[in-house]
Amino acid sequence: MVKRTRFDASDCPVARSVDAIGDWWSLLIVRDAFDGSRRFGEFQRSLGVAKNILTARLRGLVAGGVLETVPASDGSAYREYVLTPKGEALFPVIVALRQWGEANSFAPGEPHSELVDRSQGRRLRPLTVLAEDGRALGPADTVVHKLPAD
Amino acid sequence: MVKRTRFDASDCPVARSVDAIGDWWSLLIVRDAFDGSRRFGEFQRSLGVAKNILTARLRGLVAGGVLETVPASDGSAYREYVLTPKGEALFPVIVALRQWGEANSFAPGEPHSELVDRSQGRRLRPLTVLAEDGRALGPADTVVHKLPAD
Repeated sequence: MVKRTRFDASDCPVARSVDAIGDWWSLLIVRDAFDGSRRFGEFQRSLGVAKNILTARLRGLVAGGVLETVPASDGSAYREYVLTPKGEALFPVIVALRQWGEANSFAPGEPHSELVDRSQGRRLRPLTVLAEDGRALGPADTVVHKLPAD
Repeated sequence: MVKRTRFDASDCPVARSVDAIGDWWSLLIVRDAFDGSRRFGEFQRSLGVAKNILTARLRGLVAGGVLETVPASDGSAYREYVLTPKGEALFPVIVALRQWGEANSFAPGEPHSELVDRSQGRRLRPLTVLAEDGRALGPADTVVHKLPAD
């Protein structure tokens, strides 16, 4: 079995996020939860992933507080998985990955799914990194303040 | 050897991004490139990753057009790795992961590195998903238009 590298002791929030999310499967489960999937079978059909992998990833996301289980919405015996507030806070991460993929991973004119504003059916604005005073910032306009080494 | 699952035939831009980035190591390499790392040894010191893994990930990021190699800035024989425009476009992805980590993966008061506006030294605004007309949108305000199945 491949030992997973842990990033949870890092003082870098990017590394901690990577650790908390788990792997790409977990991130795609979160994407599907945003898109309305709630049941094991729905995630499995969408992802085409082996049941044992899906079981482990759902368990990890629940343990990490990203998903929680609730009784089935139709009163049946199924458990359903819904995003917690911590999970919902991943929305900008998913949107950022989506917009980068739209711009960089499709040929011109190649069709892809689209995330739109529910009330108007229009595409969203590109996510923009903003300074406290509202100026748009690029990578060169920012700097990481690292913690002093112990 | 573990066979990597490919997501590059998906019509979902999130899945294609996940495929194009590679794995978490690759994403942390991109993070370090944003933070100024350029040489193999710099990435290795920052990440503490095995050389063969780092070599493979750097090669994958170059093949995917996220990084490119350039002659060393000091005129030495080293190759340096710099972000391409496609790589620079990952900035909102890294910032989104960072902000989620800051909010969700540290105890209150626990120190972490900070990304600040270079000119003013202040923290950034939280990334916000906006409609075309500028309204802030949450997950429930958006919907994915999937492509019809073939």
